[in-house]
Amino acid sequence: MNIILLSGGSGKRLWPLSNDIRSKQFIKIFRKEDGTYGSMVQRVYDQIRRAVPEATVTIATSKTQVSAIRNQLGEDVNICVEPCRRDTFPAIALAGAYLCDVKGVSEEEPAVVCPVDPYVDETYFSEIARLGALLADDVNLALIGIEPTYPSEKYGYIIPETQEKISAVQAFKEKPDQDLARSYIEKGALWNGGVFAFKLGYLRAKTQEQTGYKSYGDLLSGYSALTKISFDYAVTEKEEHIQVMRFKGKWKDLGTWNTLTEAMDDQVVGQALYDQTCENLHVINELNVPIVCMGLKNAVVAASAEGILVSDKEQSSYIKPYVDQIDQQIMFAEKSWGSFRVIDVEEGSMTIKITLNPGHGMNYHSHEHRDEVWTVIAGRGKTIVDGMEQPVQPGDVITIEAGCRHTIIAETELRVVEVQLGQEISVHDKKKYRLDS
Amino acid sequence: MNIILLSGGSGKRLWPLSNDIRSKQFIKIFRKEDGTYGSMVQRVYDQIRRAVPEATVTIATSKTQVSAIRNQLGEDVNICVEPCRRDTFPAIALAGAYLCDVKGVSEEEPAVVCPVDPYVDETYFSEIARLGALLADDVNLALIGIEPTYPSEKYGYIIPETQEKISAVQAFKEKPDQDLARSYIEKGALWNGGVFAFKLGYLRAKTQEQTGYKSYGDLLSGYSALTKISFDYAVTEKEEHIQVMRFKGKWKDLGTWNTLTEAMDDQVVGQALYDQTCENLHVINELNVPIVCMGLKNAVVAASAEGILVSDKEQSSYIKPYVDQIDQQIMFAEKSWGSFRVIDVEEGSMTIKITLNPGHGMNYHSHEHRDEVWTVIAGRGKTIVDGMEQPVQPGDVITIEAGCRHTIIAETELRVVEVQLGQEISVHDKKKYRLDS
Repeated sequence: MNIILLSGGSGKRLWPLSNDIRSKQFIKIFRKEDGTYGSMVQRVYDQIRRAVPEATVTIATSKTQVSAIRNQLGEDVNICVEPCRRDTFPAIALAGAYLCDVKGVSEEEPAVVCPVDPYVDETYFSEIARLGALLADDVNLALIGIEPTYPSEKYGYIIPETQEKISAVQAFKEKPDQDLARSYIEKGALWNGGVFAFKLGYLRAKTQEQTGYKSYGDLLSGYSALTKISFDYAVTEKEEHIQVMRFKGKWKDLGTWNTLTEAMDDQVVGQALYDQTCENLHVINELNVPIVCMGLKNAVVAASAEGILVSDKEQSSYIKPYVDQIDQQIMFAEKSWGSFRVIDVEEGSMTIKITLNPGHGMNYHSHEHRDEVWTVIAGRGKTIVDGMEQPVQPGDVITIEAGCRHTIIAETELRVVEVQLGQEISVHDKKKYRLDS
Repeated sequence: MNIILLSGGSGKRLWPLSNDIRSKQFIKIFRKEDGTYGSMVQRVYDQIRRAVPEATVTIATSKTQVSAIRNQLGEDVNICVEPCRRDTFPAIALAGAYLCDVKGVSEEEPAVVCPVDPYVDETYFSEIARLGALLADDVNLALIGIEPTYPSEKYGYIIPETQEKISAVQAFKEKPDQDLARSYIEKGALWNGGVFAFKLGYLRAKTQEQTGYKSYGDLLSGYSALTKISFDYAVTEKEEHIQVMRFKGKWKDLGTWNTLTEAMDDQVVGQALYDQTCENLHVINELNVPIVCMGLKNAVVAASAEGILVSDKEQSSYIKPYVDQIDQQIMFAEKSWGSFRVIDVEEGSMTIKITLNPGHGMNYHSHEHRDEVWTVIAGRGKTIVDGMEQPVQPGDVITIEAGCRHTIIAETELRVVEVQLGQEISVHDKKKYRLDS
């Protein structure tokens, strides 16, 4: 059993906790058994491991998310990396080719594609794992249909032919208005959960038909020229031999603050105080200073290094155009080796705090237009500057002039204050080198 | 004409913009002609200079505010520093003795005492300057009575004998409930604006009567043992030869977010965006990341390095007990030489950003329990470390071990990232030295 999790793009609708490089699936808001908080991607990954332990999970995503995924799920997770964003059909085609050509999976095997961020119980994953068994000579594609709980305008609808658990599909309907949604539901329509099961050979045939490419290598090299098209348009809506499995149970799409906060286990994550006149308030505070809330009703407050959102919950679904107006550099990022956070920005300088995970190091790199000063504030490790190795500990200061090759490697968790100095500070000013050991 | 401005204590009711060391009078929210923002103390000081240019202004305040006052009003401002807080009678007694004994002002001269933070027009200060002229053989004390605009429970009331502009006083009334306030107002009562005029000789007599001290030096050395008592209790309410001058005009006490935001010239100070469904919203953002507000009504959002407040305006007057629960170090402070802001706190380290004003320097000092690393990020100046002078510019790194005497002096505005390292980082770990030049 192969499960392909689609880890979708950046979204601004959960700003300031999601941004151009941090997607909503990485926000840590779900309380884990040990009292710490986990993200949606961690929650879904754990649920699948428990519900379908025999499944091979592959995450299809873009380059920008690889670091965050490895940081949150560990180094061993399978990732199929899209060179750029081309919508769901190319992403799924690439992941299928990756499984066959790189991982050696047989074309006879089924794969189930699922978004990385449904908010569901484990039973959902036991169900989707059953989709593979539906595939047969006369069933090329099997889908999940969610029993609607209200006439939503946000989802596509699947009209099944019967009200059985498993049914052929009569029609697909685009996102309707509320009245139309109500009439669909009266006919027994289901929400399209974005889950597709197919045999890998079927996907390869469709890929070749639509892109001309067959192998993983060809797809990868021609990827940036592929047409942006969704799997629904490219495949599902044209397929006649298709079945839908009805799912009745908890299923939420946590795409807006309104829906996300409904799913939160705690009213408050992070430092916050609120008075008794607050009602239906949720606070997520990633900053290290407190938030005090007084007399707020039906509101969400979210604060991160990127900014602060204070919103009526209903109104929160309309934030995108406002966030689009914000032209600001990235203030926080998870990397494969740890994370960094911008703590000060000046004309001619930027100060960041770097946390390196034990055993991890940055790429060996140099900058053309800036000097850097590292002050180690916690942990142990070593630096390599122009080939010279040096052990480091708290209090050590390393100055790196423009052009110098440098890296820092953590033995224990290592924290560093990095002051960048130069008139042209840019994330693009970076040249990587192989570190000959 | 002597005006004594009482710059009162720290308050938490305007948290996070006021805190233990920054009082509300220093928050910059009033738009100045040049488009920048000024504080209440700057606004009042400028208004007095324009309305009563002949007046000598002295600010009576505590040690903790001296730096902020000099930073906001300049080096030339007269300040009478209380060694500790002892309520308004000791503070006024000390300021009076300071004027006579230090500044050589005659005891025959009148002085007008006024809080530093009334939100008024300039005419208010022209009026209070006239109080001095009322003082005569049979008038020892002259007060301002504000014509009430509503039956407030927040103010003391003065019942005048007549409804004339100037009247003798029949009685003083404590803060009443609303019904009582209404009945006072029907009798022509006025709010007590906390303004007193007297001759300096009268104050000296009262001081000696109540404290046993006469001179500035004696008062200063015995200050910490003085009884905490207000000028109203100690003097005003016992005085029989007293007159009140009626003031009708704009007068507001900006003590809570609700009243403060009413006085703001702009709906937003700092980086913020809000949608059209927001109503009666005010935002003050001292952080360098944006705040986005959606669908907020009758709300105030205030963010500083100390924390974030999001409150219904009415409810905002009840924040004190919530803020009292916050046990946090000072994250921002104005000093006589500039300001600093905490940008990162770790176990075993703290990183701050220091801004030194041109021509200013820190005290020459050392720390017993911490090392420091300075990275200059902007400006020019010099450092002195254990007597060794060195010019500094952006990119320069200075490491200062525990025990080292050090200072930095700005030639142009100088900005420095300071990493403090040690297991016992405390503001109290500081030893000052004379810098022999």
